Amino acid sequence: MMTHVVGVELGGTKTVVAIANRDGILLEEIRFPTVSPRETVNQVCSWIKSKITAGDAIEMGIASFGPIRVDAHADDYGRFLATPKPGWSGFSLIDEIEKYFPKSRIELETDVNAALLGEMRHGVAMGMRDAAYLTIGTGIGAGICSNGSLVHGTLHPEMGHIRVSRHPDDTFAGTCPFHGDCWEGLASGLAMEKRWGKPAHTLPNDHAGWDWQAWYLAQGILSVVAIMSPEIVILGGGVSQFPELRDKTAHHLDVLSAGYFTFTGDDLQLAGLGQRAGIIGAMELLNQTR
Amino acid sequence: MMTHVVGVELGGTKTVVAIANRDGILLEEIRFPTVSPRETVNQVCSWIKSKITAGDAIEMGIASFGPIRVDAHADDYGRFLATPKPGWSGFSLIDEIEKYFPKSRIELETDVNAALLGEMRHGVAMGMRDAAYLTIGTGIGAGICSNGSLVHGTLHPEMGHIRVSRHPDDTFAGTCPFHGDCWEGLASGLAMEKRWGKPAHTLPNDHAGWDWQAWYLAQGILSVVAIMSPEIVILGGGVSQFPELRDKTAHHLDVLSAGYFTFTGDDLQLAGLGQRAGIIGAMELLNQTR
Repeated sequence: MMTHVVGVELGGTKTVVAIANRDGILLEEIRFPTVSPRETVNQVCSWIKSKITAGDAIEMGIASFGPIRVDAHADDYGRFLATPKPGWSGFSLIDEIEKYFPKSRIELETDVNAALLGEMRHGVAMGMRDAAYLTIGTGIGAGICSNGSLVHGTLHPEMGHIRVSRHPDDTFAGTCPFHGDCWEGLASGLAMEKRWGKPAHTLPNDHAGWDWQAWYLAQGILSVVAIMSPEIVILGGGVSQFPELRDKTAHHLDVLSAGYFTFTGDDLQLAGLGQRAGIIGAMELLNQTR
Repeated sequence: MMTHVVGVELGGTKTVVAIANRDGILLEEIRFPTVSPRETVNQVCSWIKSKITAGDAIEMGIASFGPIRVDAHADDYGRFLATPKPGWSGFSLIDEIEKYFPKSRIELETDVNAALLGEMRHGVAMGMRDAAYLTIGTGIGAGICSNGSLVHGTLHPEMGHIRVSRHPDDTFAGTCPFHGDCWEGLASGLAMEKRWGKPAHTLPNDHAGWDWQAWYLAQGILSVVAIMSPEIVILGGGVSQFPELRDKTAHHLDVLSAGYFTFTGDDLQLAGLGQRAGIIGAMELLNQTR
């Protein structure tokens, strides 16, 4: 009997599963569209079972979209909270997986915290104890590590919903269904698309929207810097891939900071593992004590 | 020979020193105006020496204004960084104290983190592992605890300097010498005084300034809630003493949150130890491992 290491990155639209041997050598990886919760878990677990010998053990690290209870001591550990994603509110992810793999070690973390962990183990934040990972995609999310521990608090950070200053020329109402013009409401990929009438990645390089975007991002980054004093802030997610966005954001960060913070634009980095931070972090969850 | 427990709260304008026996029974307390660094340390240490018998040992917990290096592993541990307070930039507090009390145990923390520790041990945050303490006085500062550890990051939080949305009717430029209209620049006691032309505590209860103030405070509190997900946010400092400010702020917090956060206005509390949180926290520094 052997033990396999499994990573699962459960995203709002797609799910990635990877399997490795005990030495961390990646054996195989697959991705599915994320559908209903039971069907998604069934696809994940059936695929894993097809890759191992009956009787083999697994350990599973899961990086999940949220909101989901990741506190292993909570009564509702592993359960989704209210989410607009149909069918997922109240779904108990861990209970469902245990139907397929009873008594297996399972470690659960938010997708953003897992991505940060991946970057801290193998990416641009190696050796650091205080770091933040921002994902700028359809929404905005943050994974945060303080003094070597991933931050959960009472649930987990929902940093997309902080307040920021509006650009003086910005009359866009914002996309957040709760807050309108919170950070995510003004600076997510969805907000860019709604404000300018076309997807962010189709805006030309010299479009004013990129400078506004960088300015909004810099404001949110300044908040996490002011509150957590991290060594690095890592940018991930689709919108972060725009060629000059990191540099423009770093510039605005320096201007907004006005020399006050020791954190400078140089401490703002793109994810070193790119889109693979999440799945690598999911497997790394098995290499940490919680 | 006996060992005395000493707490020092080193503030920008006044310094409090308290001495207790090993059982934590407070023996005596005194306060001085904070003057030049060497003279201040001399006053503190001379007073302590006058209270103990020659040859007695002391342990000292210090809650200090900042910015100061509190990382005991740093080369410049115990040294002030650039501060507008004349004479204090670059002053090595710990080195100076050790001239009076060589080889004594000294624990150093920021004033706001120490106040938070006091509240976690004896005040409104007892038993909690994730909490924030805000002081709203001449400036705005924050002490933060994540998963049971006081947050330092690369230096320590400087939360007063986050960005917030301006009140649509607010034309005041802000008081922050670095950022103008950052949170502290718009919502500190100094900002209130400059905006309205008189000290905050002289504004009548029904003055519109209090509602603006509560709205600005709620924005900053929402940021720390979104980033750290604390169980409680504690309000301290002079401005927080205005009778209705907590309730008004809690109201705005609920409105701004729009039902999104599990944190509600009920989780916003005035400091249980009032103005004594700092000195009590300074002594409690000796009861924790770092």
